[in-house]
Amino acid sequence: MSLKPRIDAAVSRAIAHGQGRAQGPGGEAVPQKLASALHYATTPGGARIRPTILLSVALACGDDRPDVSDAAAAALELIHCASLVHDDLPCFDDAALRRGKPSVHRAYGEPLAVLTGDSLIILAFEVLARTGTVDAARAAQLVLTLAQRTGMPGGICAGQGWESEDKIDLAAYHRSKTGALFTAATQMGAIAAGQEAEPWFELGDRIGAAFQVADDLRDALCDVSELGKPVGQDDLHGRPNAVAELGVDGAMSRLKDILGGAIASIPSCPGEAALAQMVTLTAQKIIPQAAVAAARG
Amino acid sequence: MSLKPRIDAAVSRAIAHGQGRAQGPGGEAVPQKLASALHYATTPGGARIRPTILLSVALACGDDRPDVSDAAAAALELIHCASLVHDDLPCFDDAALRRGKPSVHRAYGEPLAVLTGDSLIILAFEVLARTGTVDAARAAQLVLTLAQRTGMPGGICAGQGWESEDKIDLAAYHRSKTGALFTAATQMGAIAAGQEAEPWFELGDRIGAAFQVADDLRDALCDVSELGKPVGQDDLHGRPNAVAELGVDGAMSRLKDILGGAIASIPSCPGEAALAQMVTLTAQKIIPQAAVAAARG
Repeated sequence: MSLKPRIDAAVSRAIAHGQGRAQGPGGEAVPQKLASALHYATTPGGARIRPTILLSVALACGDDRPDVSDAAAAALELIHCASLVHDDLPCFDDAALRRGKPSVHRAYGEPLAVLTGDSLIILAFEVLARTGTVDAARAAQLVLTLAQRTGMPGGICAGQGWESEDKIDLAAYHRSKTGALFTAATQMGAIAAGQEAEPWFELGDRIGAAFQVADDLRDALCDVSELGKPVGQDDLHGRPNAVAELGVDGAMSRLKDILGGAIASIPSCPGEAALAQMVTLTAQKIIPQAAVAAARG
Repeated sequence: MSLKPRIDAAVSRAIAHGQGRAQGPGGEAVPQKLASALHYATTPGGARIRPTILLSVALACGDDRPDVSDAAAAALELIHCASLVHDDLPCFDDAALRRGKPSVHRAYGEPLAVLTGDSLIILAFEVLARTGTVDAARAAQLVLTLAQRTGMPGGICAGQGWESEDKIDLAAYHRSKTGALFTAATQMGAIAAGQEAEPWFELGDRIGAAFQVADDLRDALCDVSELGKPVGQDDLHGRPNAVAELGVDGAMSRLKDILGGAIASIPSCPGEAALAQMVTLTAQKIIPQAAVAAARG
């Protein structure tokens, strides 16, 4: 069963709050362009891979408080969307396209793009905090985990920050830039279902590493119509890339090794088998077809 | 007794976490420029007016969990500093100076300025969430209140967002752009000390309104050496201003009315008298001397 409708509904409820629509009519006036940009930046949903992993882990752990899991999934996706909006800004990638449509700063201008990213980050924490009335301990732990994987010194902000350093620590760079939101996904899924976060680190870490290699393959091989954003960005910006280091075959082989390890790392839980299947399905989604063809050829 | 040393220590501990120094040596590598920018953006401290109000309310309510109050004060100041960093960006005010030194994007470049603002926002929520081990319910409530006053639809992001609208709702604009962090201050102070937030709204709201008028006076009358940032920005950007509307005398008179109402609104609590004194002291700090002289002359 696809989790996407559940995730899209949770994201949509969160955005309604951010737009002041959830509070009902008659409230304070809201700046409409920024309100509209919040929706624009979070739709269409794409694969929603991170919240899918989060909910899959929560379900594997029993999902005893679905409202808390929904909030966690929405919060994680909001952070991911915020990072895309800010990474696309002229001072970073200066991307014209995202998910096949103009990037937020192209559609709404740079001031509203900065504010859209800021607002989505804040909304993510608000969504989590609102579950405090259901279970304050889980809410606080979810906020802490998401913050640690998003900010400094080890979250996606740190990852982006590495690109301004003269000398990049590659392991720290990949772990924070790409890996952090995958460890957030597995750990927040466990927390949302009342389980310890720590045993779920390795699964997220390995999925993140696989995703990084898959992203490198996509960046090196796919054309703009498949990707919906400019390709060859790594080469253009001189960023490190697994394909440059290992070639296409080597990168594909590394990716398969990592995914095998990911499945082996799944902690013992009621939904272990279904979760292993989800990891395999996610892998099929993230490996670009051009890379499969190139590795065969 | 000045609360500034207590606030500065709390902010400094928060920044140490964000820089990866609080976790001790031997941890993961950290991008050093971004780590340095976090410190740069939060020092020198300035008047720390918002966290002073927060701690004053917490003390008036008994301050039974000083660690939680400290975290709340630090979080609020981090959000304020983050907003200054992003507001100074070229796409907004393009400010060269802040607190008498180059703005973050002038000192570190635009990419790191965007990331510094993002990281400070996230760190604020992390600092609050970490108090969850002491009192999860207060932690979750603090995150919720701070998020509501920072993001969309009614926080400082909304305030900044109004400046991109063709038609500005002035009441909503001022309340969100300037007032929101003052209501956050009084309400978070109450929550940190285990009290209801709602009765503390009016005090924060009135201090915020007073601050807005004082800021308009400063912007209209002071020179760059007193302010440490470019003056006449409102006039330059065509933003609404109480001095333009009422003149200097009229604005001074409105400011005094608002402050009188603020003191009258203080809820009954053990430290009521001391809190009234703090509001008076804060007023003396925020009213620019040039406006006092102009109103006399």
